[in-house]
Amino acid sequence: MERIATGIPGLDEMLGGGLFPETAVLVEGAAGTGKTTLGLQFVVNGATRFDEPGIVLTFEEFPRQFYHDAAAFGWDLRQLEQENRLRVIMSSPEVALTDIKNPDGLLAQAVQATGARRILVDSLSHFTLVERDPIALRQLAFTFVNALKRLGLTALLTWERSPLLGGDPNAGEFVTFLADGYIALRYVELDSVMQKAILVLKLRGSSHARDIRQYQIMGDGLHIEAKFEGQQRIMSGYATPSMADAFVAAFGRARD
Amino acid sequence: MERIATGIPGLDEMLGGGLFPETAVLVEGAAGTGKTTLGLQFVVNGATRFDEPGIVLTFEEFPRQFYHDAAAFGWDLRQLEQENRLRVIMSSPEVALTDIKNPDGLLAQAVQATGARRILVDSLSHFTLVERDPIALRQLAFTFVNALKRLGLTALLTWERSPLLGGDPNAGEFVTFLADGYIALRYVELDSVMQKAILVLKLRGSSHARDIRQYQIMGDGLHIEAKFEGQQRIMSGYATPSMADAFVAAFGRARD
Amino acid sequence: MERIATGIPGLDEMLGGGLFPETAVLVEGAAGTGKTTLGLQFVVNGATRFDEPGIVLTFEEFPRQFYHDAAAFGWDLRQLEQENRLRVIMSSPEVALTDIKNPDGLLAQAVQATGARRILVDSLSHFTLVERDPIALRQLAFTFVNALKRLGLTALLTWERSPLLGGDPNAGEFVTFLADGYIALRYVELDSVMQKAILVLKLRGSSHARDIRQYQIMGDGLHIEAKFEGQQRIMSGYATPSMADAFVAAFGRARD
Amino acid sequence: MERIATGIPGLDEMLGGGLFPETAVLVEGAAGTGKTTLGLQFVVNGATRFDEPGIVLTFEEFPRQFYHDAAAFGWDLRQLEQENRLRVIMSSPEVALTDIKNPDGLLAQAVQATGARRILVDSLSHFTLVERDPIALRQLAFTFVNALKRLGLTALLTWERSPLLGGDPNAGEFVTFLADGYIALRYVELDSVMQKAILVLKLRGSSHARDIRQYQIMGDGLHIEAKFEGQQRIMSGYATPSMADAFVAAFGRARD
Amino acid sequence: MERIATGIPGLDEMLGGGLFPETAVLVEGAAGTGKTTLGLQFVVNGATRFDEPGIVLTFEEFPRQFYHDAAAFGWDLRQLEQENRLRVIMSSPEVALTDIKNPDGLLAQAVQATGARRILVDSLSHFTLVERDPIALRQLAFTFVNALKRLGLTALLTWERSPLLGGDPNAGEFVTFLADGYIALRYVELDSVMQKAILVLKLRGSSHARDIRQYQIMGDGLHIEAKFEGQQRIMSGYATPSMADAFVAAFGRARD
Amino acid sequence: MERIATGIPGLDEMLGGGLFPETAVLVEGAAGTGKTTLGLQFVVNGATRFDEPGIVLTFEEFPRQFYHDAAAFGWDLRQLEQENRLRVIMSSPEVALTDIKNPDGLLAQAVQATGARRILVDSLSHFTLVERDPIALRQLAFTFVNALKRLGLTALLTWERSPLLGGDPNAGEFVTFLADGYIALRYVELDSVMQKAILVLKLRGSSHARDIRQYQIMGDGLHIEAKFEGQQRIMSGYATPSMADAFVAAFGRARD
Repeated sequence: MERIATGIPGLDEMLGGGLFPETAVLVEGAAGTGKTTLGLQFVVNGATRFDEPGIVLTFEEFPRQFYHDAAAFGWDLRQLEQENRLRVIMSSPEVALTDIKNPDGLLAQAVQATGARRILVDSLSHFTLVERDPIALRQLAFTFVNALKRLGLTALLTWERSPLLGGDPNAGEFVTFLADGYIALRYVELDSVMQKAILVLKLRGSSHARDIRQYQIMGDGLHIEAKFEGQQRIMSGYATPSMADAFVAAFGRARD
Repeated sequence: MERIATGIPGLDEMLGGGLFPETAVLVEGAAGTGKTTLGLQFVVNGATRFDEPGIVLTFEEFPRQFYHDAAAFGWDLRQLEQENRLRVIMSSPEVALTDIKNPDGLLAQAVQATGARRILVDSLSHFTLVERDPIALRQLAFTFVNALKRLGLTALLTWERSPLLGGDPNAGEFVTFLADGYIALRYVELDSVMQKAILVLKLRGSSHARDIRQYQIMGDGLHIEAKFEGQQRIMSGYATPSMADAFVAAFGRARD
Repeated sequence: MERIATGIPGLDEMLGGGLFPETAVLVEGAAGTGKTTLGLQFVVNGATRFDEPGIVLTFEEFPRQFYHDAAAFGWDLRQLEQENRLRVIMSSPEVALTDIKNPDGLLAQAVQATGARRILVDSLSHFTLVERDPIALRQLAFTFVNALKRLGLTALLTWERSPLLGGDPNAGEFVTFLADGYIALRYVELDSVMQKAILVLKLRGSSHARDIRQYQIMGDGLHIEAKFEGQQRIMSGYATPSMADAFVAAFGRARD
Repeated sequence: MERIATGIPGLDEMLGGGLFPETAVLVEGAAGTGKTTLGLQFVVNGATRFDEPGIVLTFEEFPRQFYHDAAAFGWDLRQLEQENRLRVIMSSPEVALTDIKNPDGLLAQAVQATGARRILVDSLSHFTLVERDPIALRQLAFTFVNALKRLGLTALLTWERSPLLGGDPNAGEFVTFLADGYIALRYVELDSVMQKAILVLKLRGSSHARDIRQYQIMGDGLHIEAKFEGQQRIMSGYATPSMADAFVAAFGRARD
Repeated sequence: MERIATGIPGLDEMLGGGLFPETAVLVEGAAGTGKTTLGLQFVVNGATRFDEPGIVLTFEEFPRQFYHDAAAFGWDLRQLEQENRLRVIMSSPEVALTDIKNPDGLLAQAVQATGARRILVDSLSHFTLVERDPIALRQLAFTFVNALKRLGLTALLTWERSPLLGGDPNAGEFVTFLADGYIALRYVELDSVMQKAILVLKLRGSSHARDIRQYQIMGDGLHIEAKFEGQQRIMSGYATPSMADAFVAAFGRARD
Repeated sequence: MERIATGIPGLDEMLGGGLFPETAVLVEGAAGTGKTTLGLQFVVNGATRFDEPGIVLTFEEFPRQFYHDAAAFGWDLRQLEQENRLRVIMSSPEVALTDIKNPDGLLAQAVQATGARRILVDSLSHFTLVERDPIALRQLAFTFVNALKRLGLTALLTWERSPLLGGDPNAGEFVTFLADGYIALRYVELDSVMQKAILVLKLRGSSHARDIRQYQIMGDGLHIEAKFEGQQRIMSGYATPSMADAFVAAFGRARD
């Protein structure tokens, strides 16, 4: 089956080849873990390398900052917009939720105009500012995500978790049920250093990597690196070396 | 006593032979643990291998996605429907709760038309969107499940837990009391990899396996594998090797 | 002083001989730990082996299921009812709470007709469906339990706890104060297997076993087995081998 | 300074000689830890061994049970009442709170009639049934305890904690501030057995034992035994042997 | 810069010489940790040894008990009052909060009459009885503490925490922000004994000891003793010996 | 790209050179961890060493105390104000939130008058006193921070966390989303001493140090020191030496 490659080094292999078309995948993590970067990378790679135009729907309020942040990774969003390969929509959650229902809305027009196949929604968690009632919120988000799919888009939805470190993976019951995939980004304290960990927890209809890997945010975006080794409780935010490894680290292996 | 075999490799043995007729068993787990797959496998196996037609009641809103996901496991639901061995009912929780009370409702008709003996309800947790009051919700779910039994159905009820990892097994007091069995699916971090664990915690009126086993979701559905060995706290989501095993791993066994 | 033997292998010894007459003892545990089985065993043994007729007050809604479950353990409740040695009352919490106040109510009549000395109330936790206010609930349960004693009954009251695993023993402050005894049933993960543990935490006016024992639910009901050995934190749901035992398991004992 | 000896074997030594006159000391613990027994022992010893009459204010609703429980320890409360050395007042929290304000109330009369110097209030936690507002409750309990002191009484106040095991010592902020002393009774899982632990955490104006001791409830009441040794986290409910002790237990001490 | 010495053996050294004038320092701890004793010692030492008269503002309701408790440490408060070196104000939180705003109030008069430079407020936590709204409470406490400073007083403010053991240091956000210093007193279970620990967590504008020290409450007040050694997690209430120390305790040091 | 150096020894290196212009960075930590000191150091260094005037917006109510605290570090704020290199604005959260919207407000005037490029807001957490509704609060803080950027300011925003020790890094979801960077200051219990740890968790658009470092508050402000070594769980507040280090500490390394 067709796959939508993210083009992010190492990630497509974790995803068993990429995302499925017209699915929505959560990218969940704390502030600073690189959710937006991962999402932009997905959309920009589509536009520049895979001939798949894309849309960035952001609730960021500072266009200059936004374009600047992207430029720091070498992504010239304005240029891509001029080439009609990308459309950046700066909106508010309220406006986006109304617009999505309109077949002639901004988003629908952008899809039609660019032939977009990918979208980054940054961030879905802003919807919690719009609707306090959890059930109403859940239905609202469900409607929104379904509308994206109906527009033929493959979506990355960022979700910001508030405990920066620790706490179990949990984007609130209101989003896990609506996503076809779930990518968790985590800070992990390991050897007195704050590392970053990525895990593909779920990818509907596909096999995927199950190991927890390190990643770096480098000058050109995220790079997935080797899997963690000899550690326990990584996803809790505080990695603990396995006891066997601790023994070996201290004494060497007994029988070599 | 008669048993309703799931036909899932390894699971019937864990269940002491299968489910009892006209009982309802919870399949509880986080997003991506394979609850729906397990349930479909139960119903499809009934229709194709055990001559027991079945019903799938789903609150999924995308028929195409749903049939496609099943097809990825080699299950041609439309074909089975044409052969009158399966009926897929796509509904909403509200509609389903009303329909179940109607002796001429969709569900009753489907049972009559197909002679169905099995049902997958995917998912029972959607009922929490319909009714906020916990006591009313509990009674409503109770009525629903009892109605399934009165229709002669053996039911698998999926229940989605929101913490993806960690947290004690707990589907909320409102469902454990109404189920005749309880199958828990869990993500377990072990050796820096996210494994999957299955446990039959309860099966009314039957002996059953008590060990915690690994399972894989493969191209043709779930496969139960060997039990975990030398691990503690598996069901907490973070497995810890036993200290004795850690010593042996590091030093070899002292007296061999 | 007179004791009311449960007749459950191993349990009477744990209880220092049995229960005291006209007391009420909680049997608390998660779904599937065998609370109802233990309770039925207590009442059936009374009727068949100790010449003490009994009553089963259940809020179960499926008589067929109920009698069937009992039959699976070899208990023919209908036969016992015909011999006037047992009375099964299927009711709702609301009805039971009204009935208990009526000196000519169903329960009072059943006691009079059978000369019942034992009762199983399955389960007291259903009362939480009737009354939301915790103080009102507490007084209501208190009144109910006292009424049972006034009828000359010795009562086992089951209480279902919602976390299936883990969590401290706690039936809510609203029931511990009213019970003369407290028997806790627990799932315990040990060596990657889900074992069952029983503990008599309290028995007013009597010495009792203080060790935590394993038990099995077998074809004829519960069997108490040996105490746990070399484990810590059993009652937390996740047993941890003591470090000393771990050393010995890995290396053998140093000085033997 | 004068001390009010409890006469409980081992406890007076822990208390640095006994309680101070006209103070109120909390005895906090879970159901079944022996709070009432300890309190009765205090009052009965006063009446029989120290020539200090006493009062038992209980919210127990079954006089027969109450007298019977006491008799099981060899305490003939009715006899002591006839000798005017003891007065048992069975009341409700509501009535007690009104009565205490009345200089000619039952309690005041009982003090006058018997010359009582000691009182057991069993239990202070019942007041939480009377008043829901925490601040009002706090003031109400404060008034009540002060009234006891004004009557010249030295009081033991039992407080039932609802988690049977685990949880930090905490009788709610509403009582710790009003007590002159604080005795904690705990269940402790140790070596797969449920032991009992006693700790004097506070005794205003006095030195007291700071070690955590085991105790037994025997045929004549509580007996304080040796202190725990080589254990950590006793007060958490789950004792953990110290690692040094675990090594020695497994290997023997290295240099003996 | 001038320092206000507490005169408590060991504490001034921990504080880098003492408190700064016209600052307010929290003394936080559970019931029985000696907050009031420490505070009285501070004020009495001022009056008797440093020629700095002081005020004790207490919400204690039993004057006799209060003076008696102080006398037990050898502090004759009445004598100090007669010498105009001390003023004990027994009040309620409500009255104190009104009085503090009155330039001719009791407190202002007491400062003027005695030339007081120190004050113990025992306890600030009583203010939570007066005002339920957390923001209003915070502003009220802020106003109160500022008024003390305007009167030229250096204040110790006691704060009672309700979990007696365990729980992280936290006097509620409403007080930490208003204090210039923060002294934490803790029960610590260590080697099966309940020890006491003191830590100066914060002292605005000054260096201070950062180690956690033991202390005793002796016949003449608090004595700070040696720092803890080889322990972890002291401030959690349950000290854990470091693993290295455990090895050495069991085996001796390897290479000596 | 231009960087705004903090001038704090060690911190600029952690930040990859300094802050970016017109960004806002959170400095989060408990009372006494030195948030205000760090912030003042940032502004004062700007004014005195980098020719970048600055503003201090503080909700402190005691000017004398404030200037005095700064003087203790050798920072003569009044002198800097006279030289028009610094402006201290003492305000309330309410006033500041209104003023910020006014183009001729105090803050705007101060920027214009001094040419300020830096600001310390001490503390953002005071805004929680103004607005109780979390969504309104979030929007209000967002507006405020954006206004600072529009004025051309680079901002340090202090945030006081209420648990002094322990608890995961979490400034509440309401602030993490609005900050371009996040610096966490922590108390850490290590070897029975309360150390201080600093971590740059996030810095939008920049690489930064990921290790957790110790720091001291010295006579001239904060000094960042060496990174922690051989410790786990530092950010939890209770550092745990790694097991391998514990072995080496006790026995020496096996093969040297």
